[in-house]
Amino acid sequence: MKALLLVAHGSRAATANDEIRRLAERVAAVVDGDYDAVVPAFLEMAEPNIHQGIERCAELGADAIVVVPYFLAGGRHVTRDIPAEIDCARAGHPQISIEIGGYVGASDAMPELVVASARGAA
Amino acid sequence: MKALLLVAHGSRAATANDEIRRLAERVAAVVDGDYDAVVPAFLEMAEPNIHQGIERCAELGADAIVVVPYFLAGGRHVTRDIPAEIDCARAGHPQISIEIGGYVGASDAMPELVVASARGAA
Repeated sequence: MKALLLVAHGSRAATANDEIRRLAERVAAVVDGDYDAVVPAFLEMAEPNIHQGIERCAELGADAIVVVPYFLAGGRHVTRDIPAEIDCARAGHPQISIEIGGYVGASDAMPELVVASARGAA
Repeated sequence: MKALLLVAHGSRAATANDEIRRLAERVAAVVDGDYDAVVPAFLEMAEPNIHQGIERCAELGADAIVVVPYFLAGGRHVTRDIPAEIDCARAGHPQISIEIGGYVGASDAMPELVVASARGAA
């Protein structure tokens, strides 16, 4: 059983965190069997935090988890903070394969998404 | 002449700001004639700021500018701060049509981009 853990920064604004939870549902709708579950998590300021998100995946029976950092830039959160949390998670769940995917800002698809966003201008 | 102004938050980390400048170049490579120029700008902490970015578009001869907020959530930066800056820009350049597109996190293409980012896991 394979899970995708979508890790966002987390916000003081509940609406922003809810937006991430809705996005996780939208991702679940397009995974086409690649993943059996999509779980949202937050680095800071909201729950589930990364530890809780990994626990949730484990409860669902995941033997493999791919973490996608929902971040636009490859700053310290992406290069240091999330990997450090994932290292802890790996130590606590040695039976689960936990890998970290690319952060969304680095995606080859981002330039086209920006152009599509411009088309929505009003 | 139509310009796309890509507005990111801006970071204390120069590498993060450079990433936005590179993204603007990558967007320029895929606009396919929809825009004649793609200009990066920053809400905070880096330059060009939004005012300077609009001036740059005007210098290039833009008579229409579409602003794309490079933000993941529809928080106050997207709903209040960027529109306020753009209102000022419109007042200063009444001859230029300036519209605001969707922020990237709201894109219909984002769920697929997240799944593609997961595929890059290692």
